[in-house]
Amino acid sequence: MTEKPFALSLKAVVLDDRGRCLLLKRSMQSKNNPGKWDFPGGKLGRDESFDAGLLREIAEETGLRVKLERVIGTAQSESPQNRIVYLIMEARLESGEVRLSDEHEEFIWVDAGALPDVDITEQLKQFAIGYARSRTHR
Amino acid sequence: MTEKPFALSLKAVVLDDRGRCLLLKRSMQSKNNPGKWDFPGGKLGRDESFDAGLLREIAEETGLRVKLERVIGTAQSESPQNRIVYLIMEARLESGEVRLSDEHEEFIWVDAGALPDVDITEQLKQFAIGYARSRTHR
Repeated sequence: MTEKPFALSLKAVVLDDRGRCLLLKRSMQSKNNPGKWDFPGGKLGRDESFDAGLLREIAEETGLRVKLERVIGTAQSESPQNRIVYLIMEARLESGEVRLSDEHEEFIWVDAGALPDVDITEQLKQFAIGYARSRTHR
Repeated sequence: MTEKPFALSLKAVVLDDRGRCLLLKRSMQSKNNPGKWDFPGGKLGRDESFDAGLLREIAEETGLRVKLERVIGTAQSESPQNRIVYLIMEARLESGEVRLSDEHEEFIWVDAGALPDVDITEQLKQFAIGYARSRTHR
């Protein structure tokens, strides 16, 4: 049995100056998880470092400039082609107003404590619950 | 203030058929953490996918062939040049006998439950404690 190859995806929890987290609602035309809420991010381009690739994806999907601060988690899922490993970073909003690409159709800023109540893509649900707990118990 | 750039490092907890974890003792000549115990792994080469790079590092450092199974954690540290983000995978030993490179001077196979008692590099200590807990409470 041949195993599916791994692929790396970068995601960010972008925090505004009130500590709220940015979520994007995936387009109903998305091949994967249409209509689910997601964190900005995506796959790296060839030859791209993970931080540069993540900043590029965030800029493309949200129009925002952010500062990456620290790694906060991982997750894993399967696509028909790949085993996808997510590396999740915390980021601070630096400047800009949200401007969505055609990959998404809505955005919200939510308190970390509310993350478990949002209909987030399956593969990031456990991460979101743990992150909410870590942000509300400190 | 300019922030240090990020760098990605891959690490693996390699399990043998008895479920023991492989640890390598860093050479006393190591620039970082000499004499501390570490998991195999390292930085990616240019243009190298994270799974191919991790398999290469494991082969170079241990002579072993392993199968990567899943992502199990992250960690972060600072070097004088970089903020290093660790992506940690679980791997199964496939074949080979441990043959160390000159980066390491000893190896041990330990039960996961014993990881907290080993003098592991500072940045991976918290991960090791959590991993030991997850492996012994199931």
